[in-house]
Parts: sequence; structure tokens; C-alpha cells
Amino acid sequence: MIPRKIIIDTDPGQDDAVAILLALASPDEIDLLGITCVAGNVPLDLTSKNARIICELAGETHVPVYAGCDRPLGRELVTAEEVHGRTGLDGPDLPDPQMALSDGHAVDFIIETLRTHETGTVTLCPIGPLTNIATAFDMAPDIVKKVQEIVLMGGAYFEVGNVTPTAEFNIYVDPQAAEIVFRSGVPITVMPLDVTHQVLVTKPRNTAIRDLATPVGVAVAQMTDFFERYDREKYGSEGAPLHDPCVIAYLIRPDLFSGRHINVEIETTSELTMGMTVADWWGVTDRAPNALFMGSVDADGFFDLLTKRLARL
Amino acid sequence: MIPRKIIIDTDPGQDDAVAILLALASPDEIDLLGITCVAGNVPLDLTSKNARIICELAGETHVPVYAGCDRPLGRELVTAEEVHGRTGLDGPDLPDPQMALSDGHAVDFIIETLRTHETGTVTLCPIGPLTNIATAFDMAPDIVKKVQEIVLMGGAYFEVGNVTPTAEFNIYVDPQAAEIVFRSGVPITVMPLDVTHQVLVTKPRNTAIRDLATPVGVAVAQMTDFFERYDREKYGSEGAPLHDPCVIAYLIRPDLFSGRHINVEIETTSELTMGMTVADWWGVTDRAPNALFMGSVDADGFFDLLTKRLARL
Amino acid sequence: MIPRKIIIDTDPGQDDAVAILLALASPDEIDLLGITCVAGNVPLDLTSKNARIICELAGETHVPVYAGCDRPLGRELVTAEEVHGRTGLDGPDLPDPQMALSDGHAVDFIIETLRTHETGTVTLCPIGPLTNIATAFDMAPDIVKKVQEIVLMGGAYFEVGNVTPTAEFNIYVDPQAAEIVFRSGVPITVMPLDVTHQVLVTKPRNTAIRDLATPVGVAVAQMTDFFERYDREKYGSEGAPLHDPCVIAYLIRPDLFSGRHINVEIETTSELTMGMTVADWWGVTDRAPNALFMGSVDADGFFDLLTKRLARL
Amino acid sequence: MIPRKIIIDTDPGQDDAVAILLALASPDEIDLLGITCVAGNVPLDLTSKNARIICELAGETHVPVYAGCDRPLGRELVTAEEVHGRTGLDGPDLPDPQMALSDGHAVDFIIETLRTHETGTVTLCPIGPLTNIATAFDMAPDIVKKVQEIVLMGGAYFEVGNVTPTAEFNIYVDPQAAEIVFRSGVPITVMPLDVTHQVLVTKPRNTAIRDLATPVGVAVAQMTDFFERYDREKYGSEGAPLHDPCVIAYLIRPDLFSGRHINVEIETTSELTMGMTVADWWGVTDRAPNALFMGSVDADGFFDLLTKRLARL
Repeated sequence: MIPRKIIIDTDPGQDDAVAILLALASPDEIDLLGITCVAGNVPLDLTSKNARIICELAGETHVPVYAGCDRPLGRELVTAEEVHGRTGLDGPDLPDPQMALSDGHAVDFIIETLRTHETGTVTLCPIGPLTNIATAFDMAPDIVKKVQEIVLMGGAYFEVGNVTPTAEFNIYVDPQAAEIVFRSGVPITVMPLDVTHQVLVTKPRNTAIRDLATPVGVAVAQMTDFFERYDREKYGSEGAPLHDPCVIAYLIRPDLFSGRHINVEIETTSELTMGMTVADWWGVTDRAPNALFMGSVDADGFFDLLTKRLARL
Repeated sequence: MIPRKIIIDTDPGQDDAVAILLALASPDEIDLLGITCVAGNVPLDLTSKNARIICELAGETHVPVYAGCDRPLGRELVTAEEVHGRTGLDGPDLPDPQMALSDGHAVDFIIETLRTHETGTVTLCPIGPLTNIATAFDMAPDIVKKVQEIVLMGGAYFEVGNVTPTAEFNIYVDPQAAEIVFRSGVPITVMPLDVTHQVLVTKPRNTAIRDLATPVGVAVAQMTDFFERYDREKYGSEGAPLHDPCVIAYLIRPDLFSGRHINVEIETTSELTMGMTVADWWGVTDRAPNALFMGSVDADGFFDLLTKRLARL
Repeated sequence: MIPRKIIIDTDPGQDDAVAILLALASPDEIDLLGITCVAGNVPLDLTSKNARIICELAGETHVPVYAGCDRPLGRELVTAEEVHGRTGLDGPDLPDPQMALSDGHAVDFIIETLRTHETGTVTLCPIGPLTNIATAFDMAPDIVKKVQEIVLMGGAYFEVGNVTPTAEFNIYVDPQAAEIVFRSGVPITVMPLDVTHQVLVTKPRNTAIRDLATPVGVAVAQMTDFFERYDREKYGSEGAPLHDPCVIAYLIRPDLFSGRHINVEIETTSELTMGMTVADWWGVTDRAPNALFMGSVDADGFFDLLTKRLARL
Repeated sequence: MIPRKIIIDTDPGQDDAVAILLALASPDEIDLLGITCVAGNVPLDLTSKNARIICELAGETHVPVYAGCDRPLGRELVTAEEVHGRTGLDGPDLPDPQMALSDGHAVDFIIETLRTHETGTVTLCPIGPLTNIATAFDMAPDIVKKVQEIVLMGGAYFEVGNVTPTAEFNIYVDPQAAEIVFRSGVPITVMPLDVTHQVLVTKPRNTAIRDLATPVGVAVAQMTDFFERYDREKYGSEGAPLHDPCVIAYLIRPDLFSGRHINVEIETTSELTMGMTVADWWGVTDRAPNALFMGSVDADGFFDLLTKRLARL
């Protein structure tokens, strides 16, 4: 099996960090061409710093990390320090990175990478707002057809929203960018809150990771300890939802997930429902399907995979 | 206990019919001042006919029935014959009504009734689009403060929508009217799809009603037989959801229901999400609560109540 | 010639007052069936009082005056005291009215009048927000086809707006109602700001009216004196624009006006452009014409007519 | 006087062509660093070809010409062949260009140019849709503060619209991009239809240019001959409006123009009014001024300047 070439587009964020670690721990299945950072959970200077902290934690400093767009298309940036802490990686005490950012803009890296690889061989994995991806598609429409697939974390249907009553954070931050991506024609697989709220880091799962007794294991346990406070208080849930790692887990073990191939539109006009992912789950419209929208996950299988892989780092 | 004075505002509809029957069967708790009809599930001429058919089925021809608005405020009428059949009451074979419609417009009846009763003694029970209620509030703002409570069937949050991916039928048909009602300041109790999809007429429940072996019991069983086809095919559910009777059941046994006192806004600007009831279930906005939005129901208790009451007719 | 039967729907307002006076002064051409009041320039209690003050000033206390809707459909009321003064009729010192309001709601009067007259014999002349008219159409759709014509003051195209950069006051106050009226299918003639900003009460014109030396002439001169302050300061114009009398002048002397039969849509979704009358003056869309939208007026002819008619009172 | 450094961002278009020629003919006042092309009047392959045709017509093949974005942010491209002809430069018969496009993307050229010049020394002159400029601002927010000024052709207030009843073409094609530019904080000078409809190429003006009897003069006369057909038929105007050259004329002779420093917002949500430039000309809102919005021009002075300058080429 040839490892699948991917770019992770990210705004770490504790759960972004775990997604990056899961990818780095899975070289047989995943060839991580680069990490492109975007403003989202915290501002761009922090997300592009955090991505490098995580690479160094994993001892994988060869991966190029690029800084990208520092705010959404045509809206003010909204961040989520109340969830992720001031640094975006609150929890563990990790050293500042030694590795430098790669030269050039994240968007240019995305464009160049797609242009220099064969059509259908590079997958984009956005786990933050979709600003970088949409900007790349706007500047270089020739690359749209070259993308193998977009597997993204974002949106919600039955879970409806987290940052507003009707919107999930990643889509809400840049609904315009999301609309560009969802209308691009690229095959899209979506990990919405409907799925990610099923993968909760319960106490036993947290303990299993901590008991790896590696720097990575301990740091991940500390990150999820911090991260879960927010959801526990708000939803009364049993643990932190590991949103972003679902994207990477799907690349390794797609059989853990199930969903429907349906139409998904993005609300971009009404402030009240701004950024909603309007998913036609019941097929009540005649709009053409444009995304595989996931609805359930084998949570035990997911944590088994995650824990075993983290053990390799 | 003094029976609670109510007006049922309705667009029958099989489940509307059951709601009317439940009210008529409960004179100790409910004093039904009148039935006001509106266009919704089927056009106004049919809903105002169906309401009388049901009164005659129950042998309660003294209740005044008024015809009201025949289309929503500022939008084209959308109907739901695919759910309710061509007549709106498909299923049983009931005779045309002998009793006449009362003279005057439903809206005038609502206004006059509220003006001639003491403040806080009349409850409005809308189980169709909110056109009549909103028009009455527009024409006679003095009555708004006189309403004791509005208990309505409409909207959805986690169940999101039925007629579109994000809207429930009653609100979708006249979102403008819904906005007027939800901003009126009247205490509102909402029975959304989240609750009504929990009260399914399963086979045993249908049989229990049919076995009453009364004209009312048989007709209700036949109505739910017809009505359930749609939801069974679309959602794979175990039986028809009895949306509207939840409103009347709540007046008799409020302890069967639980919910949250939260803010609910109506989407009126975006076609994509038109008619959504944006319910701030998790309290993520600072908008003031304006409705008791129900989330769960004791379904067995509900059907026990319903079956026993129908037996009285 | 049989006088044309009309209802004036109004929110006086100094220019509304002049429109009423012009109608009362023209019994050969106009049969004023009644005056229906609405909230707009000032709240309903003042507009329904001011209408009677004007009838008494003209000595025409037989005209029934009805109070109607006290706020727009689904929006908060916006008023314009900065233009019209605290009373809505600032300027002259007129006594409180002795005549009573007629019993019943303005909307019911409009409905009843249209139902009891032959189709095509009653013209509606709205010179305030369209709330009463739209509510009547909602409650009694049968009357829509009975209306001969609607001649209204409202909207703007090249003059764009007065209350906001893109909206004229009457339409802005109740865009929802305006949309209902413009989509009703009734023949509509529109007097927009494009026309009404051409009929300015310059000093000589004001003097000519004052020199009538009648109570009516003096009061009108005092009203326009007050009224013009606002436009003079804002636009640097030479005098107050007599918006509403254009509607009545058109019924008497249609040859004074010219315009185009075009499509007019109302903006009801965007806050930025809310209440705009999007007039397809250049025919760049394929939307069907629904209104005769006036563009120019013979201002001297208008003031000649007005002054002569006011002299009769 | 040091010539002012500018980038012309353009979608030629006959009037774009005249703007480029006017800049090339004015080296004492204008230092044209480059021409960046965008999709607009015609698709990108044609606009980037037409820009070079014009440079060669002027014998100025040293100016770098870049191709940029080939469609607006998040909307389908709308073009205007009905105005400009199939090629975008219909009228004269000019040879295909020999000079090559410069390597690299127009957006990268804009970014690099601003980064490598001192702050406040480069002016952007967009005379097409604002896609390239907005994309540059999105990708490289550091350059926003480095821009000296944006002088653009686009929008309308009293002239309201040309492509729809409420929108001018350049803004309508990419309202999202326009919103980004108008909210950027960069000093903006706007040449709206209000101004450009005042500079009409009447017969004597066309003759004066043709009588230059140079290749440039003849070609410009032929271009305006073609271009005027559309406006003559639609508006009954006396000649083609020379929209885009107003931008360049302003850099040379700002005294020819007058306007107001006001707030301008872009309508981006409602389809009905999409792309409108909501200009607060009368100061009725409390929104802060963000643009110098021109309202009038000395048309004879403009044509005198234009004709004399074209004579130099």
C-alpha cells in the first residue's frame, strides 16, 4: 500500500494537535507533505507556532510548516480561547519550537503542491476554517480538479451548533470560504459535530493515553484534560470531543465511520443562522449531493486506533 | 379546578383532529371557547370543513368554528397533501359536516374573545401556521397583554426540520407570523419536533385506540394508519408522530413534558434556512429567554392519557 | 363626471394634511369615503387625532376617520418627529378635534367598503406606511380584486432614499407590508421621491398660499414653514417637498405627471438596503411590470392647482 | 514632481483601454509599474490579451502585464459582451500581441510590489472587479497599510445601477471582493456612474480624437464608436460614457472632480440588491466615512486633457 499524500490545514488547537500526531504516527498509511496554518482557534502567529511545537514533540521536524491567511474572507476573525486557552495549546508545558516556518505563503504551497503532483494523488485535510483552501481555489482554479479528496472537520446537522445555536466553529469563522469549498465539485468527506461528539475522551480513555508514559502520551492526556473542561461544563458531557483526529482516523480506518452522501449548503447571508451547514439528511430537497456527511463512528475502535498509534511516537 | 379557557387555532390535518378530540374529551380541564381555522396542511376551505367534521364526530356541535386567513403573511401558501392526503383527513370515511361555520372572521373572534375576557384567562393553542394569531396581534395590539399563554406546536432544534432540512412545517409556512408571535412578549410554550417525534403511534398503541370500538376510536386509528405512511417511509420510524395533541396533553398533564426556558428566534431572511426556529438550547448567546422549549415527553404516559380520554367520547 | 371614490390611508404629517385638504376641496373629482389612520410619521394616537384636526379645519366633519394598525408587520415602529415635530402637525396652532373617531378598526372599514361597493369603483390612496392596506389584503383576500387602483406616495429610485441611504420613509417603516401590496396584482401608481422632490414649496409659492388669507391657507403656510426646515438643512433645497398631495393631484390632473410602467420590488431581507424600492427603470431585468412609477411632474401646474383648490375651503 | 507609482488592475474593455493609454501618455505624472488583469467584461484570457494589445498600440511594451484571478470570490463570473463585443475590444482591428505575459500571478505581483516599495508610495487603480485586490489583501494583510491610495471605477448612487437596477457592473461581479476593499481602511477614491455618465463621447469629441490621425487616435475613436451603441440604445445618451479613464484623469488633474467624503457599504447578502454601493451621500447614518465618493466632473476639461494626452502617443 502506498501511503496517501495529504496536506493538513490547521489552527491548533489541542484536538488539531492530536490529529497531527496521529498522522505523524501513521507513515504506512499517510505521507504528510506539509502543514498549512490558518487563523481560527487562536490567531495565526499562535497556530503556526503550535503546529511546530507538535512536530517537535513528535520528533518530526522535517515536515514543512507554512503560515497562511490570518483572517477569514470578508469577516472579522472570531477565536475560541475560552475552549483552547490563551495559547491554543493550554494543558501541557511544551517548549517553544526551534524549527523555523517554511518560506512562502501556505496558499502558494497548496497551489504548488497540487500543480507538481499528478491529478488525484493529493488529499486536503482542513481541520480549521477553510480560508487557505478557498483562497488557493480562487487564485488557482486549475488545481481544483487535481485534488483527490477533501476530508474535513466542520459543520453539524442534528448537533446543530457549538459557537452559535446553529453553527459549528470552523464553518462559522469563514462561511464564505466554506461555500467556495462545498461548491468546488471536489469530493468532500465531512466530519461534523454529529460524529465528533461521539468520540469523547472519558476518564478511562484519558488514562490509557497517559499510561503510555511517553512525552507524547502525557502531553495528549494533559491537553485533553484542559480541553474537556469546556464541554463538560457546557454540555455535561463525559469528556472532551476529539473533533479533528476523526479526519485522520478516517484516512486510516474508513470502516470506523458511516454517513450519507447528501447535499450540504452553507448559510452565508443571514446573521442569525450564519455558517450553518444545511445538510439534506432526509433528502427533502432536489439539490444534488456534494458531500459524504458522516453520522456515526465506532468510538471504541477510534480510541483503540488512536492510543496504539500514539504509542509509536 | 376551573377548566382552562382556550382557543384552538388549527389546520386539520389528522393530528390536529386528534388534538381537537382530546380537548373535547377533557371538559374538566379544558373549556374550548372556539376553533379558528387557518390555511396550512390543506387550503382554508378544507381545514374549516375538517374542523367541523371532527366536532360532529365527537357530537360536540356547539363549539363555534371560524374560518380565518387563507394564506400566510407575504408568502405563497405551501400545503402538505403528501402527508395528510388530498382532503387533509384521509383515512376514515367521515360524512360532510351539517353544522355551519360561525359568522365573522377567525381573527375578529380571537380579538373579541380576548377583549371580553379578563386579562390572563384565555390561552391560545395554535397547531398550524401562526397567521391568524399574528394578524390578530397586528390589528389589535391591546390583546397581546391579555393572553394568558400561547401553547403551540411548531419548530424543531435537534430534529432540525421536516419540510426543509432546517424548518418544521407550521413555522415554515408563515415565518413572518411566527416572528411576530415569538417577539410578542406573551408566555410561550413550544412543542417542537424534538418532542413530537417521541410520541409515535406504534402498532400496539394504534390497536389500543381502535379497540375502543367507538366511532371516535375507529376513526382515530384509521387516521393514524394513513398518516404514518409518510413518516415510516421517510424516516423509517415505527409509527406516526402525534404532533398537535401534545399541545392539549400539556394543558392537562404538564408533568409529562420537560424542556428549557430559552431564547427562540425565527429565521425570516434567508431562503436556505427560512422558517428555522433558532433555539439557544445551550445558552451560547445573550439573547433573553422568550419560550419554554420542550425537549422530552413521557410517551407512554401521553398515550395512556390520550386513549383514556378518547374513550369518553 | 362622477367623482372618484377613494379612501385616504394616512399618518399626518403636514404633507398628509395638505393631501387631505386637497381632496376635501375637490368634491367634483373626489368622493372621500373615509380616512384610515396608521402609525408612521408619529404614533397612531397622534395620526388619528391629526386627521380629525384637519377635517375640522376644513369644516368637513362628516368624513369618517378610523384608527388602524399602531405598528408595522413584524418590525418596531420608526417615527419621524425630527421632520414633522412632536405632534406631527407642528407649525400652526390648531385646536384639539371635537369630532370622534368612528367605531371599528380601519382595516375592517377598508374591507367592508370594498365588499359593499362594486368591483373597480374604489381607489386606495395610501400616503403612509402600508400596514393597514396589507393587513386588509391578508385578512380578506377577496377584496384585492375589487380595488380599482392604488395610488400611493412612497419609494424612490434616482433619489434613492431619505430615512436611510436607500429607503424612503413610508416603505422603510413597513417593507413587509409594501411587499404584500406590490405583489398583490392591483394596478399601482407610485409617487416616489423622484417626483415629490420636484414639488418644493418655495417662498413665492408659500406666500401665494398664505395670501389666500383663509384659516386653511394660513395653516398650510405655517405647516410648510415648519416642514421645510428639515429639507432645507439636509439637502439645501429651496423649500419643503409636498410628498403626499401628489397622490391627490394625480387623481384630479393625471396629465401633470409622467412615468414608466415598470417592475418594482421591495427589499425585505437585507438590513443595509431594507425597504428600498428596486425600480427597474431601465428595463434590465425580465421581471414583469407591476407599477406605474412616476418620474416627473409639472411643478408649476401642481402648485397652481393646489393653491386654487385650497382657496375653496 | 515625481511621477506617481501606480498599478492598473483591469479587465479591458474599450474604456479600460483608453484608461491605460491615458496613463502611458502621461509619464510626467504617472509611473505605471505594471498592469494586472482580472476576469470581468470578458474572460481572463481575453482581458490579459487585450491589455497587451493596448500596450503594443502605444508602443510601450516594457510594461509588465500579469494575469490574475479568473473568476470572482464565491460567485459565478458575469461578463458583458453585450456592451464590449465578443473580444472585449470590438471596434478597431488591432493585431494580436507579440509581447508575452509576465510570469507569475497578478496577485503575487501586487503583493511583491507593495512589499518592496516604501509605505505610501504605490497607488492601486482598479478599473474592473476587485477580485485581485481583495485576494492580495487576504493573502498578505501586511500590504494593506502600505497602499498609498486606491482610486477605482465602480459603484453608483443617484445613477443607481447599470447591470441590475441597483448595481454597477464592476462591483456586482464581485461584491465580496468589493466589501473587503471598502472595509480595508485604505484611503479610497471612487469614480461611480454618477461621474462617469457625465463624460460622454459626443460626436464632436469623437471627431476631435479621430482627427489626431494617429494609430492611437483612430483606434480610440473606433472603440468609442462601438462602445456607445449600447448606452445610446439603452439610455438614449449622446455618446459612450468613458468610465475608466476618469481614474487616471483624477491622478493627473484632481481639480476636475468633486465629491464627498462619506461612508460606502457594499450589499453582499440580498440577491435583489446585490452589489449595490450604499453611499451615505446625505449623512443620514452614523457610519464612519471610508471613501471619497465623486459626484461631478468638468467634462470639457476631461476631454481636453484626454485628447491632448492621446496626441502624444
